[in-house]
Amino acid sequence: MEPKAFQDYYPDMFSHCYGCGRLNDHGLKIKSHWDGEESVCTVRPQAYHIGMKGFVYGGLIASIIDCHSTGTAAAAAYRREGRAMDTEPPLRFVTASLHVDYLKPTPIEGPIELRSRLKEVKERKVVVETDLKVGGIICARGTVVAVKIPDSMVPKE
Amino acid sequence: MEPKAFQDYYPDMFSHCYGCGRLNDHGLKIKSHWDGEESVCTVRPQAYHIGMKGFVYGGLIASIIDCHSTGTAAAAAYRREGRAMDTEPPLRFVTASLHVDYLKPTPIEGPIELRSRLKEVKERKVVVETDLKVGGIICARGTVVAVKIPDSMVPKE
Repeated sequence: MEPKAFQDYYPDMFSHCYGCGRLNDHGLKIKSHWDGEESVCTVRPQAYHIGMKGFVYGGLIASIIDCHSTGTAAAAAYRREGRAMDTEPPLRFVTASLHVDYLKPTPIEGPIELRSRLKEVKERKVVVETDLKVGGIICARGTVVAVKIPDSMVPKE
Repeated sequence: MEPKAFQDYYPDMFSHCYGCGRLNDHGLKIKSHWDGEESVCTVRPQAYHIGMKGFVYGGLIASIIDCHSTGTAAAAAYRREGRAMDTEPPLRFVTASLHVDYLKPTPIEGPIELRSRLKEVKERKVVVETDLKVGGIICARGTVVAVKIPDSMVPKE
């Protein structure tokens, strides 16, 4: 059995995201895990996720860096509090800013590998840096500033 | 009849992008136009394009800013050369970097309005700044550095 991913621990109300929600049937359902101090995620793009023929479109790259980073931020926040991701209260982060440098065209064949480092972990703010690789070559690099979800975005359930 | 959008002038080989290609049947097919010195684009998100319930996921916001900006870059490059977008040779730009500040949650009801200004227009590099609004309120702001498509990305057709 696969170990549970960060996103598998999100409570239902936080699991509808097109990028990473296990309850969004149209979405990408990305899955992130720890690998020591880094977090990792593998994404297999669909053939139609192209920008130019043969290469992934920039929006997918931005989307998966974004969702993987907010997932990493949540996981880091639980770690910081010294508790497991299935304990209360749930921690969820959203994106304050996203920066992506597109270094090389990203081959559509994939698989795309994301590997992230934590640059800052505070109670309400986590900064995540990500390398995006295909076949061991870095094609893009991203930085996400994630912040604890504001009350205005928490679903009333 | 609607006036043609920037993306409608892309030659077929440049029209497969998931975000903006008129030949990508799975994609978003965004359409951008001039409004004086600014470029504009309206996007109606699907109900499943949510991050949290009620709000657009960050990846869609990044994707549409990205494709609208590279389209604006191409249109600006034709303008700079004093020729129409249906003249040869075709000009196409790709993203070198993308930065998005998420200022407020973006309501999923939309419509999302993008409005962009040109910060720099050179032969091989165009910088585009975009405000993303719903109901007149700025929800995100983006900056894209677009560069002329490298030969390695031009399809061999």
